[in-house]
Amino acid sequence: MLKYAMIGGGPGAFVGGVHRRALALNGQARLVAGCFSRDLEKSRVLGRELELDGDRVYATPEELARLEAGDVDFAVVVTSNEAHYPNVKACLLSGINVMCDKPFTHTSAQAEELVRLARERRLVLAVTYTYAGYPMVRQMREMIARGDVGEVRFVNCEYPQGWLAEPVETSGNVQASWRTDPERSGGVLSLGDVGTHVEYLVPHVTGLTLTRLAARLDSLVEGRTLDDNGVILTEYDTGARGVYWYSQAATGTVNGLRLRVFGDRGGLEWFQEDPDHLRYTPINEPARIITRGTPELLPGAMAYSHTPAGHPEGWLLAFANIYKSFCDTIATGAAMDFPTGEDGLRGVRFMEACLQSSRQGTAWIDIP
Amino acid sequence: MLKYAMIGGGPGAFVGGVHRRALALNGQARLVAGCFSRDLEKSRVLGRELELDGDRVYATPEELARLEAGDVDFAVVVTSNEAHYPNVKACLLSGINVMCDKPFTHTSAQAEELVRLARERRLVLAVTYTYAGYPMVRQMREMIARGDVGEVRFVNCEYPQGWLAEPVETSGNVQASWRTDPERSGGVLSLGDVGTHVEYLVPHVTGLTLTRLAARLDSLVEGRTLDDNGVILTEYDTGARGVYWYSQAATGTVNGLRLRVFGDRGGLEWFQEDPDHLRYTPINEPARIITRGTPELLPGAMAYSHTPAGHPEGWLLAFANIYKSFCDTIATGAAMDFPTGEDGLRGVRFMEACLQSSRQGTAWIDIP
Amino acid sequence: MLKYAMIGGGPGAFVGGVHRRALALNGQARLVAGCFSRDLEKSRVLGRELELDGDRVYATPEELARLEAGDVDFAVVVTSNEAHYPNVKACLLSGINVMCDKPFTHTSAQAEELVRLARERRLVLAVTYTYAGYPMVRQMREMIARGDVGEVRFVNCEYPQGWLAEPVETSGNVQASWRTDPERSGGVLSLGDVGTHVEYLVPHVTGLTLTRLAARLDSLVEGRTLDDNGVILTEYDTGARGVYWYSQAATGTVNGLRLRVFGDRGGLEWFQEDPDHLRYTPINEPARIITRGTPELLPGAMAYSHTPAGHPEGWLLAFANIYKSFCDTIATGAAMDFPTGEDGLRGVRFMEACLQSSRQGTAWIDIP
Amino acid sequence: MLKYAMIGGGPGAFVGGVHRRALALNGQARLVAGCFSRDLEKSRVLGRELELDGDRVYATPEELARLEAGDVDFAVVVTSNEAHYPNVKACLLSGINVMCDKPFTHTSAQAEELVRLARERRLVLAVTYTYAGYPMVRQMREMIARGDVGEVRFVNCEYPQGWLAEPVETSGNVQASWRTDPERSGGVLSLGDVGTHVEYLVPHVTGLTLTRLAARLDSLVEGRTLDDNGVILTEYDTGARGVYWYSQAATGTVNGLRLRVFGDRGGLEWFQEDPDHLRYTPINEPARIITRGTPELLPGAMAYSHTPAGHPEGWLLAFANIYKSFCDTIATGAAMDFPTGEDGLRGVRFMEACLQSSRQGTAWIDIP
Repeated sequence: MLKYAMIGGGPGAFVGGVHRRALALNGQARLVAGCFSRDLEKSRVLGRELELDGDRVYATPEELARLEAGDVDFAVVVTSNEAHYPNVKACLLSGINVMCDKPFTHTSAQAEELVRLARERRLVLAVTYTYAGYPMVRQMREMIARGDVGEVRFVNCEYPQGWLAEPVETSGNVQASWRTDPERSGGVLSLGDVGTHVEYLVPHVTGLTLTRLAARLDSLVEGRTLDDNGVILTEYDTGARGVYWYSQAATGTVNGLRLRVFGDRGGLEWFQEDPDHLRYTPINEPARIITRGTPELLPGAMAYSHTPAGHPEGWLLAFANIYKSFCDTIATGAAMDFPTGEDGLRGVRFMEACLQSSRQGTAWIDIP
Repeated sequence: MLKYAMIGGGPGAFVGGVHRRALALNGQARLVAGCFSRDLEKSRVLGRELELDGDRVYATPEELARLEAGDVDFAVVVTSNEAHYPNVKACLLSGINVMCDKPFTHTSAQAEELVRLARERRLVLAVTYTYAGYPMVRQMREMIARGDVGEVRFVNCEYPQGWLAEPVETSGNVQASWRTDPERSGGVLSLGDVGTHVEYLVPHVTGLTLTRLAARLDSLVEGRTLDDNGVILTEYDTGARGVYWYSQAATGTVNGLRLRVFGDRGGLEWFQEDPDHLRYTPINEPARIITRGTPELLPGAMAYSHTPAGHPEGWLLAFANIYKSFCDTIATGAAMDFPTGEDGLRGVRFMEACLQSSRQGTAWIDIP
Repeated sequence: MLKYAMIGGGPGAFVGGVHRRALALNGQARLVAGCFSRDLEKSRVLGRELELDGDRVYATPEELARLEAGDVDFAVVVTSNEAHYPNVKACLLSGINVMCDKPFTHTSAQAEELVRLARERRLVLAVTYTYAGYPMVRQMREMIARGDVGEVRFVNCEYPQGWLAEPVETSGNVQASWRTDPERSGGVLSLGDVGTHVEYLVPHVTGLTLTRLAARLDSLVEGRTLDDNGVILTEYDTGARGVYWYSQAATGTVNGLRLRVFGDRGGLEWFQEDPDHLRYTPINEPARIITRGTPELLPGAMAYSHTPAGHPEGWLLAFANIYKSFCDTIATGAAMDFPTGEDGLRGVRFMEACLQSSRQGTAWIDIP
Repeated sequence: MLKYAMIGGGPGAFVGGVHRRALALNGQARLVAGCFSRDLEKSRVLGRELELDGDRVYATPEELARLEAGDVDFAVVVTSNEAHYPNVKACLLSGINVMCDKPFTHTSAQAEELVRLARERRLVLAVTYTYAGYPMVRQMREMIARGDVGEVRFVNCEYPQGWLAEPVETSGNVQASWRTDPERSGGVLSLGDVGTHVEYLVPHVTGLTLTRLAARLDSLVEGRTLDDNGVILTEYDTGARGVYWYSQAATGTVNGLRLRVFGDRGGLEWFQEDPDHLRYTPINEPARIITRGTPELLPGAMAYSHTPAGHPEGWLLAFANIYKSFCDTIATGAAMDFPTGEDGLRGVRFMEACLQSSRQGTAWIDIP
């Protein structure tokens, strides 16, 4: 069994628990060390709760990285966004593989540096774009790759949420507060939080490469200076086109990531709130509902499907699947089939291009 | 009972039959005269089938307009798009009220002239934006007007179809052929066919006025020169924003007009393929499914709801509702609560602005 | 164009208007005579509104039947249930074809007599089991007939409504009052109103013949003596089995007729509140959503599909389809493809068997 | 952290892995001993894989029970059905708390004995009726308890699956083989496998007590002697009534457990394949979609909701929730809020009553 350390994820930090549960589910890795909080005492309390050896709870990420190098197989970085860069860097410099929460870093320069460090040291560096872990997202990717929709012509990907439809950041919501603080969020709000999931998912699933975009970022809620909504026109290397919409001010929506792909031989639709199903319509034929766990699943999807058809999996298992692939690579050298640092870098560049386009009146920006 | 004449809608013309059935459903008006086809003989055959007096089938729209003036209460113009302008004009000049199919005219100059003629002659001039006839679209409009979603901040309206995902115009599909012929379609394909429905519906339902747009029109199917897909960024008088997407090359979609409105107090969603239901989510509360025919319906919606809840109405009844309101105005002077020539003019201007924006690289265009 | 008379359907009688609108939609028959109400004056008012010749509004059904024999092609009987028998009989005795609302009669003896009369006089006698008119119900029937689900093994048909979940009959609801009056309703409440639709639909769609049943009729609402809910176990000639559930006290349901058929090669599901779609699952394959108006439609369904795919039809068009087939038979001698008097008789016998079984403690009753 | 042993769940036994993953997810208990297979060598291989101490893999359940008494907090019994009774008994006799897979035992005499043993020894004895673990099932229970639907009048609970629609037991399917072997399955097939879930769920959620039933068990697939389908009419202590339908021969269905409850003030509907949502319709009001993770959740549901709204949970988390409650009781003496041995006993009695009723021609059987 692999051994890992966690940086961040202290008491009250929701996402840390998610990473730990996802890893526990898989049974491939055991938590052995941590620096869960800036407050060492809090860290220790959680360490005891998690039955860690007392010596292996650290005051700083740097200390953890230094002393655990060689003793852990990887570190999980789940601090708030602004601390991703220094923490990941500390781990990489100590020769520790890293799984980093998304969005990756504030600037593409930071991301480039981390990617370079990982490459130089032959370390595994991954980013938790969770939705790629869903079996039906893998199914979609494989179906497109083998030509089930023909040549992709148009992609519509949207990700509306509604939980920032009120100015909750002014009334004590912790999650909202740091996200709407430009310093801590990197100059973007919802683009980093939900927009980057869209950015990652589309090329991952379709195989397309984004070449140009034109964006308008919106601040829909009065008094908010960062974006809580945005629309992005896209163009890809093959000539295919698309539109992205993301929002956290879409009142009444919950977590509505939806990906629709239209090719010359068929169309595909997947909705995150009903993740076990995929709607596939071969051109001029009835729509088909493909269900996770059935013989329709292609090998790459089936390998990540765990419970029988009709016994819903869900978000936590998707999360676990990202880790499954990550751990397989570390443990056995299996090919990397998870979002990498390069993907994280691409996501940061995307955000920078969107900001630039929006500031220039929805100008078209080329993606290098 | 009112009396009407029909121009166009000859044998094989699907939409003419729809107009006649919608009027028959209402029982408010009787067909008494027609010029159904450029071919008088074909016109006569249909006239006999419809039990018209033989004298009242005409060789040309102009003749019909001249001789029926005073004998009919209104004329229905359902010819192909390029003939709307001369036919409507002939009727108006003879003093006949007109219901014209959409899109209204090829150029805004034509539309302006027709609107001016109708106004000068105090004639009723209407355009069949069918979807406004659905009771739940009326419900949505009334709910927004009374503040159920608070101030509207963002609108997402999409209208994907898939029937032009293949180049059917090259293989003998009549509907596709004239639509893809620039001469007969006015320089736009899907923008006129489905995009204008979106354009009409959004301000109709929300009360917003479009002030700026930036559009990218796409020709997704190889060899096609006109648009079969498009994305339009929008801004409104109140500062609200939106995005429209229309397509006739969205493989696997059917007739997916969907309107979502997000306000600061709630959200609304309506989907044309399930027209009897409306999803309403007051902020921080569970979504509610409002069903046509129940006591939740507001008066303006209830007046156009005909069958009990759970006994689905549909597109033809929506069509009939446009005529119901139109006939009420003609028969009793009731306030005009249907799409008018002014709306048709606004639609043509919208198309012109989209074309201009798209040609200028998605430049922002002000709407006067 | 055919000519017809209407018996019943006076002011305030909802279903009379539905029959007239359905006939107007088709454009195959024109209303020329009526006895709309027991109150001649009320009848005359409606007659004028409908532009009938004053002489052709009658004081009694018998008078209408006598004087219109030879002048009308058929009569529509839409009175309350207890008057179906005498009115249909009067028409048949005068040699007039009849469309009768459902449920057909109070007793099987009455129904047998009417069926015998029609047969002897070679008259067309039909009953409006509306749901058979939906194109997708026809599609289901044709798919089963050609073997798409293999041999049918089990049928689950349910029809829950919720509008009698309160004792509305005690607070002035007219529809509820006569239905809950044993004299006027024939000893059954919801079994006649909704249960008979289930009874008709299952053999119509599957081709099965009911041979045995065991029923429990329930009065769920306090103070009600007639059934407002019921469950019926069924067995068919082929050995197939089934279960029916009907209710008008299913709080929160609307008009939820749902038919599911399970064969050894596939399954089918149709839901009346979404009537344009059919869910078909070939065994061990993904479910397919078959949409009305697409090339998947088999000939018998396509012939009754009127608007393009994605432009929802609905209940009124289903109603019109029953009349279309009925008028085709009268006008051209086309084969009867609509619910007949024999079907109505079978429905009355079914109700009698259900009552008997329920009174005998859910005993099994053979169907002759 | 608690310690547990597992009996059954060897290589290839799907459900053993599910229990282990559910427990790992919770992080409340650690596997320390096992007798995974009748073949000790297979057991040892799995033990090594799971990093168990070699001494703690046992040849027989009895040996495990004897030697681990005092060292483990509970045992998990996940053998095939016929071995539940001896294995649970061995554990209880050694003073070990037990979680047993369902269906509990073959006969009610066995179940009574186990329940008695547990009571005498004050041991915790639980049965994994998984579906009770879903947060929205808990929500439904709490809503009914506080009166949201008023007095419950009717319950419709169905559980169709399709995986036994072919005689897969004759072609080597292991799961199907032992289930269709009367010796190993206890004389019932689908009644034990899916019917008992229905039996458990209805009183658990509604608070009703079943007093009478009448059942017809069907063998729909040719050549099968045990039931693969069944319909059960029910009556409860309050006078409420219901119908259950279960099937494993419902071609085209997946895992369609659906519970609908109708009261005099509202209705509730929950569908296992979309477990995060609950449809609640207060009488005469629009339906509401209650989503897991929102403030609508009542305390007992919220305590078992783990991920934010719109991030789907699923079957494995429901499973984990059963264990969460079970472990809480063992660790802290928290009140038992999970399916117990008494529930298992009630389930066995239910099956016996269904068999008796069906053999006697759907006779009514009183439940003591």
